[in-house]
Amino acid sequence: MPVEEVHTALGPGGEFDLIRRMLGAWGDRAHGLGDDGALLDVPPGSRLVVSTDMSLEGTHFQLDWLALEEIGYRAVAASLSDLAAMAATPLGVLIAMALPATLAPRVEALAIGVGEAAALGRCPIVGGDTTRGDRLCLAVTVLGHARTPVRRAGARPGDGLFVTGRLGAPGAALSALRGGGVLSPAVRSRFAHPVPRLDEARWLADAGITALIDLSDGLASDVRHLAAAGEVAMTVELDRLPVVEGVSALEAARSGEEYELLAAAPASLDVRAFEERFHLPVTRIGTVTATGSVPVTFLHRGVRVDPGMGHDHFSR
Amino acid sequence: MPVEEVHTALGPGGEFDLIRRMLGAWGDRAHGLGDDGALLDVPPGSRLVVSTDMSLEGTHFQLDWLALEEIGYRAVAASLSDLAAMAATPLGVLIAMALPATLAPRVEALAIGVGEAAALGRCPIVGGDTTRGDRLCLAVTVLGHARTPVRRAGARPGDGLFVTGRLGAPGAALSALRGGGVLSPAVRSRFAHPVPRLDEARWLADAGITALIDLSDGLASDVRHLAAAGEVAMTVELDRLPVVEGVSALEAARSGEEYELLAAAPASLDVRAFEERFHLPVTRIGTVTATGSVPVTFLHRGVRVDPGMGHDHFSR
Repeated sequence: MPVEEVHTALGPGGEFDLIRRMLGAWGDRAHGLGDDGALLDVPPGSRLVVSTDMSLEGTHFQLDWLALEEIGYRAVAASLSDLAAMAATPLGVLIAMALPATLAPRVEALAIGVGEAAALGRCPIVGGDTTRGDRLCLAVTVLGHARTPVRRAGARPGDGLFVTGRLGAPGAALSALRGGGVLSPAVRSRFAHPVPRLDEARWLADAGITALIDLSDGLASDVRHLAAAGEVAMTVELDRLPVVEGVSALEAARSGEEYELLAAAPASLDVRAFEERFHLPVTRIGTVTATGSVPVTFLHRGVRVDPGMGHDHFSR
Repeated sequence: MPVEEVHTALGPGGEFDLIRRMLGAWGDRAHGLGDDGALLDVPPGSRLVVSTDMSLEGTHFQLDWLALEEIGYRAVAASLSDLAAMAATPLGVLIAMALPATLAPRVEALAIGVGEAAALGRCPIVGGDTTRGDRLCLAVTVLGHARTPVRRAGARPGDGLFVTGRLGAPGAALSALRGGGVLSPAVRSRFAHPVPRLDEARWLADAGITALIDLSDGLASDVRHLAAAGEVAMTVELDRLPVVEGVSALEAARSGEEYELLAAAPASLDVRAFEERFHLPVTRIGTVTATGSVPVTFLHRGVRVDPGMGHDHFSR
């Protein structure tokens, strides 16, 4: 068994009462909690992949935008997407949280969302930390394993650039929420329930992709990260971007928290086999080139444009 | 090599400028940052041990109590102490942080403290996340490995209870700071620079201890956790507690954030060999008994007392 199945008996105290309520919400989705550290086993021949992400009320979300279940789900799904970006298989989730006193009575709702995302990643919740804070803050650590992880570095001149899914809904959702507008059900669903592309990433890794990143900051930023990591240049044809209805290519390029995948791969990548397997589009949107004067060139209707950057908390 | 030695080249953006400044402060104490996940290798035959902890301004510390270097150091040292509590050897540290705009110009100071604690644990900084927030928040995840981790559960009736070091300084420091008082240099040093007992824990594991926990909530709470986990009872003789000067046994029992070790071990534990090896006292303070009507009995001058509980953010 990859993790301890049985929880260590918890001592008394208010924090442990909260943990007991979360354990009640998680049921057998949580394994082996209650010790100072979680114990896991990495399969022989595999490397450990680990990522940590913070999701903070006021910075990443507002409490009136989403249900607590959705806030918990999104925080964990976003971290699992980092495992997808390495083509790794999840081993476990740890969740450290600061919880305002007003939310403590509803901690089960948060826990339910966390549990839903963990179930989607087919991995247990193995640890965490609970503390009091003025604002809700979720720091999610995900652990995974991969025999041959795919890195951001590795794209080769001549490779194509491929993106999964359709972009733009989270950006549209944020614009509407900040403006006090109402979200269409399709946009709201994509925003509240992003799906980490874990199986898709492993399929792409087996198909020979050379570099991989998930779209968390937004394509306009993430493609630059992929180019910088690989020390190559890239050209993106924005007219090829697969967008959701009502969103322009430029808006889609700036839309963050998509959690779709951006891969560099030989042009021969079998797009049709992917789409048949996952019922999800994968679209060639550009090309990897040798390093030039500009790391990334964006073309829109044949003209070079600057779509700006995606989301960056420290640039605004 | 246990981790990737070379960082992935970072793309542009304000958040990445901050990361670059932290990397400058860390030098070769950071390994392989810049990808979606960190890659590590767990030695064959060892289990992975992982723990995550949140340290929040206003809840765990105030900015005017400590230097930023000390705040960074303490957050990482506290998490490394959880690896010590499992008798694990550190593999790597990840640090997710919310950083107020006013502190961004001084992020190097935080990073220096984080790097000092990682160096003490002889492990690299392998990942993290940086975001903007109203209050400084550090969520530290530590990864370690152990062939035979020691758990909270395992104490057997007849075992002795042993504690490392001298207790009470962090509690005395908090009382003084909250009252606007001045700390003695010795108390301030113990409060600002707790030392995770990593080598000591591995020595104790080799010496045959049966259960282990680190004193983070305070002895009065943590001994109850040890008893609950092991489904045994324990008697603590508070008069035996090794205390720092000017602190009573009851105060020492309630003092949290000690990061000393509490172990159950056969009474034959070679206390002298430990003290000669580490120049640190290890003191027998009680006994493990069969489960009775009360999980933990505290004796003070021969009389049963209730020292109360240690620190619990949700009970106050």
